[in-house]
Amino acid sequence: MLTDTASLQTVLDVCGVFVFGLSGGLVAVRRGLDLFGVLVLAWVAGLGGGTIRDLFLGITPPVAVSDWRLLAAAVVAGGAVFLLHGVWEDDDARPAGGRRHVTRAVRLLDAAGLALFAVSGALVALSRDAGPLAATLIGGITAIGGGLLRDVLARQVPEVLQRELYALPALAGAALVVLLDRVDLLSPLTAWLAVALVFVIRVVAVALDLNAPRALRSTPTER
Amino acid sequence: MLTDTASLQTVLDVCGVFVFGLSGGLVAVRRGLDLFGVLVLAWVAGLGGGTIRDLFLGITPPVAVSDWRLLAAAVVAGGAVFLLHGVWEDDDARPAGGRRHVTRAVRLLDAAGLALFAVSGALVALSRDAGPLAATLIGGITAIGGGLLRDVLARQVPEVLQRELYALPALAGAALVVLLDRVDLLSPLTAWLAVALVFVIRVVAVALDLNAPRALRSTPTER
Amino acid sequence: MLTDTASLQTVLDVCGVFVFGLSGGLVAVRRGLDLFGVLVLAWVAGLGGGTIRDLFLGITPPVAVSDWRLLAAAVVAGGAVFLLHGVWEDDDARPAGGRRHVTRAVRLLDAAGLALFAVSGALVALSRDAGPLAATLIGGITAIGGGLLRDVLARQVPEVLQRELYALPALAGAALVVLLDRVDLLSPLTAWLAVALVFVIRVVAVALDLNAPRALRSTPTER
Repeated sequence: MLTDTASLQTVLDVCGVFVFGLSGGLVAVRRGLDLFGVLVLAWVAGLGGGTIRDLFLGITPPVAVSDWRLLAAAVVAGGAVFLLHGVWEDDDARPAGGRRHVTRAVRLLDAAGLALFAVSGALVALSRDAGPLAATLIGGITAIGGGLLRDVLARQVPEVLQRELYALPALAGAALVVLLDRVDLLSPLTAWLAVALVFVIRVVAVALDLNAPRALRSTPTER
Repeated sequence: MLTDTASLQTVLDVCGVFVFGLSGGLVAVRRGLDLFGVLVLAWVAGLGGGTIRDLFLGITPPVAVSDWRLLAAAVVAGGAVFLLHGVWEDDDARPAGGRRHVTRAVRLLDAAGLALFAVSGALVALSRDAGPLAATLIGGITAIGGGLLRDVLARQVPEVLQRELYALPALAGAALVVLLDRVDLLSPLTAWLAVALVFVIRVVAVALDLNAPRALRSTPTER
Repeated sequence: MLTDTASLQTVLDVCGVFVFGLSGGLVAVRRGLDLFGVLVLAWVAGLGGGTIRDLFLGITPPVAVSDWRLLAAAVVAGGAVFLLHGVWEDDDARPAGGRRHVTRAVRLLDAAGLALFAVSGALVALSRDAGPLAATLIGGITAIGGGLLRDVLARQVPEVLQRELYALPALAGAALVVLLDRVDLLSPLTAWLAVALVFVIRVVAVALDLNAPRALRSTPTER
């Protein structure tokens, strides 16, 4: 049994919103969007997953519009990217290097957000008496939602449909939280261990370029 | 009056999820996505419409994450496409023929899913005391939603905006269910007849390339 | 205190749906879509924002599918664009001029819809006891939602991510409504003044090509 779910929940959410907000801001800057475009994309990436989670659980209005701490985390993330991007870019001699830099940074931030929201999503779902299957899937959707909306708005192929393992670590993390709850081992410590596990799996998958198998003889057409 | 709405409902939903799941899987394979991309797109296509329906009706969590039978139908559909796609493709001598094959298969499956979900969506809405207009529109949106989300994620022009009659058969089928309910003729038999009607109209529309009129002198720009 | 919120609400909504419906229809015609594509895009643009608002506030089914007046406004808007587009286009000698014409018209209609929905969204949120922050953000999202969904479906870069001030006037208008409510000055007159203010700010921003600052040394890549 978790004694202080609410505060753990908030910490996970604020951290998740912040790192996904950074990823959204970076995608926006790379696209050449202005300050408000950066803030909108930071907001969408940071708060999209939690909004879907809340709608799925009937929590209205969603925390994305009612909790000022989450809004502040997204705005700070977007603003920080906007202000610091020029400085950071200067470190790289060639623009191509800078762009690869950003892609890598987006992926790492994405992995952290994925881990935080998978656990947070499952925790909220359990606290609303969702069943084990629903809590696992809602955890996974919470983790994936923000990045998915970010990519759809920025018109890039959603990360979750790309080659490396993405949805699986999120679902595994959420399932682990459900399992821990079942065997009464859910605590802030074990919840953070679940976060760490998802993050490590995802980062290793990116680093090793671990791909799920592709259909034989499929003919990829980027139309 | 319908005596056994719940089981009819489930059968319609499982069938609809399965055929839309196949369509999502085929689109994913054609795009060269890996196993998880195929499963995600099968899940989105199969369960997207029902999720929108449930959110519109305040059913939380949506059946898409709480009913394991629907999830299983989507996973089986995605997995089947993934495994069988190579075999199937072998039948065709030229890759171009195979691709046309797939496009036709996606359209047929889409037509079946459209028919099943139009009726199922209207039934669920009526069971939740939605008015006739709301039940008709929710039926139409349930039918269109999954394919729409699939196309947005796979970055292709949504089928519903394309040339052949697509939304109209779905709305007609949902309206027919509402009408049957009004005159107390709604039964599993008449519900399945409504499914068959939508399917036939849509297939005939595709086969005859029936188009709704286009605005005069419009200048299509595919930017 | 507002004596007759419901009827003010309906007038704002019907006007907002109509102008956003026109914008959706114009985008569809420009894309060469047929009659149903035009109606679908008019419906999405006109009713998308209000649907998101209602889902965020737990109003089910959303008015977008239950209020025939709103549906009628969207259908009339889409139909009018479809019928009158050919006539209008005739006025222009060169197609390029026509297209610029349409782009400008879409922007003006968008500004009107933005203003109407920002105020309407905040009003509905307040009437459902949302807090000041939530009411402001829900007003902004209501204003932005329809155009955003329209642009995603029509596969163009969402207006809200583009250069000119877009989200800011909407948020300012919603915040003004919340403030007026706080100081007991909210009336149909002041609500319409808020609508006018948002419209004027947005139109001036477009006319003067007012841009928010862009990140230094960002490298815009339109991939």
